[in-house]
Amino acid sequence: MTENRARRWVGYRPEIRIVDCTIRDGGLMNDHKFTDEVVQAVYHACSAGGIDYMEIGYKGARGMYTEGEHGKWRFCSEDDLKRVVESGDGLVSRTKLSVMADVDRTDHKNDLLPREDSEISMVRVATYIHQIPAAIELVTAAADKGYETCVNIMALSTAPRNELEGALELLAKCPTGAIYVVDSFGSLYGEQVREYVDLYLSHAGPAGKEVGVHNHNNQQLAFANTIEAIVRGANLVDGSLAGMGRGAGNCPTELLAGFLHNPRYHLRPLIHCVQHHIEPLRQDVRWGFDIPYMLCGLLNQHPRSAMEFNESDRHADWVAFYDEITTV
Amino acid sequence: MTENRARRWVGYRPEIRIVDCTIRDGGLMNDHKFTDEVVQAVYHACSAGGIDYMEIGYKGARGMYTEGEHGKWRFCSEDDLKRVVESGDGLVSRTKLSVMADVDRTDHKNDLLPREDSEISMVRVATYIHQIPAAIELVTAAADKGYETCVNIMALSTAPRNELEGALELLAKCPTGAIYVVDSFGSLYGEQVREYVDLYLSHAGPAGKEVGVHNHNNQQLAFANTIEAIVRGANLVDGSLAGMGRGAGNCPTELLAGFLHNPRYHLRPLIHCVQHHIEPLRQDVRWGFDIPYMLCGLLNQHPRSAMEFNESDRHADWVAFYDEITTV
Repeated sequence: MTENRARRWVGYRPEIRIVDCTIRDGGLMNDHKFTDEVVQAVYHACSAGGIDYMEIGYKGARGMYTEGEHGKWRFCSEDDLKRVVESGDGLVSRTKLSVMADVDRTDHKNDLLPREDSEISMVRVATYIHQIPAAIELVTAAADKGYETCVNIMALSTAPRNELEGALELLAKCPTGAIYVVDSFGSLYGEQVREYVDLYLSHAGPAGKEVGVHNHNNQQLAFANTIEAIVRGANLVDGSLAGMGRGAGNCPTELLAGFLHNPRYHLRPLIHCVQHHIEPLRQDVRWGFDIPYMLCGLLNQHPRSAMEFNESDRHADWVAFYDEITTV
Repeated sequence: MTENRARRWVGYRPEIRIVDCTIRDGGLMNDHKFTDEVVQAVYHACSAGGIDYMEIGYKGARGMYTEGEHGKWRFCSEDDLKRVVESGDGLVSRTKLSVMADVDRTDHKNDLLPREDSEISMVRVATYIHQIPAAIELVTAAADKGYETCVNIMALSTAPRNELEGALELLAKCPTGAIYVVDSFGSLYGEQVREYVDLYLSHAGPAGKEVGVHNHNNQQLAFANTIEAIVRGANLVDGSLAGMGRGAGNCPTELLAGFLHNPRYHLRPLIHCVQHHIEPLRQDVRWGFDIPYMLCGLLNQHPRSAMEFNESDRHADWVAFYDEITTV
């Protein structure tokens, strides 16, 4: 109307790419114990739906996680990845695979093969603000091995502003392909997301890097905040089928695909997968917006207290949770 | 960061008022058949929570609706309202009552008493774009009787732009206190909401009227779009407890109260009511985001087809709904 900028979304911006995190972020709710059937169904749906990347799990160091206690998508061995990729024989297009590598919890020397010997296309380094030098070491190693790379600064909403600017200056000089705005606690509002994306782009843009965005849905803002980030120039956007992810979950991939209007994306296979493979998981895995997660988002806190509460006998007594979380 | 406008929300804008529509909009899902216990619980929670208005139902014409088939909150007789208000004896503060009056379905001559003889404080006229003269007649009658007034132009997203501007010109000259941006189909994105609020304010502002906003959650954007409207200057904002409302439901009142930071609002009584009175209604009444409602929002359609589908035997077969709604 006054500006009528919204009309441009009848078209699309081809640079935008979707990273579906269903298995990786959802794995934080079931110790990465997905069956091959579900992982392959997500791979097939992402491929048929034109989704650019599927983040399939973590590259967790064997010495730090116990097999059995943690499912195989905590490790993403090449054998496990190969089985998924081979299950897609006959697919017209293939979604690229991405893995997340936690700083200090990844044995990149032993576990990351050279890109040409791996099923992995992209390595995303997850770091807290106090680990930036180690994150740069890890992302440099991944880039040297030929991978596409991202650095995701987690828990952004609790990082002091001057440290964040220092981190962005350092990251702009390292080989990472993208820097991610990550609202781990689902506490950010649209204006804040716009301001963070502007800040990140002011460092990443001149260095030829993309900015990405990963949101949580504690305040029902994950999709909206992803759109706001896109409008400001973020080109890598995270989603997950049915919003499956830690706590309140993520921005639903199916909403993103609907909004973006890129003819590469197809909604039907995504809805098929949600109906047949993701929603049935709710029998055992509980994710998505609720009052305890809302309160964590509102108070800018890690969802851990709400996750514990939701697992307890008292999970239906939201007033009790309110009283606990607001009592110093 | 570049602008840092978000920081102002650490404070609050005292002009903003919340209209809780739990019973009125939720009544579209159960034919307005709430028990007195639930309606009174919402009244007490809104009062204790500092919510400014509670919209308790429709002023439906007796000749157009059959009692029994439609519950009493389709009519909002003064006797029924009195019982609710008297149940609040002893409350420190009282939420004002609002009713919705549908154009052509309200017998204002017989059913609207003079304001001083009624429990109602505000009358909100719901109109489609082709009923504007009748809406002005109705809102003028309500204003003449002493009520606070609003006009809600429904299904905005399907109104031709030139008709909408014509409507706003006429409404700016009538006695209504506010004009509402209503995203009936939950199809609008943030930029579109901002542009509509700017357009509405360009007419309403010079005439000394407020702009309001009422959103539906088909694309999980109801809360986000309400914030965007607030940022652009909307001062009357609709919510409902647990988002209860037609189809995908509304912006949750508890999220709004958390965001607005006005010390008048208190979250605990709202959460208490959600836990003890609203969530238990889900045993019989199904509202909130799902894939069929998402598709209606994405395609800018009335949720009626999704509501029928969700009531049918096939309600779990979302792919079938996708095929139907995308087949001409």
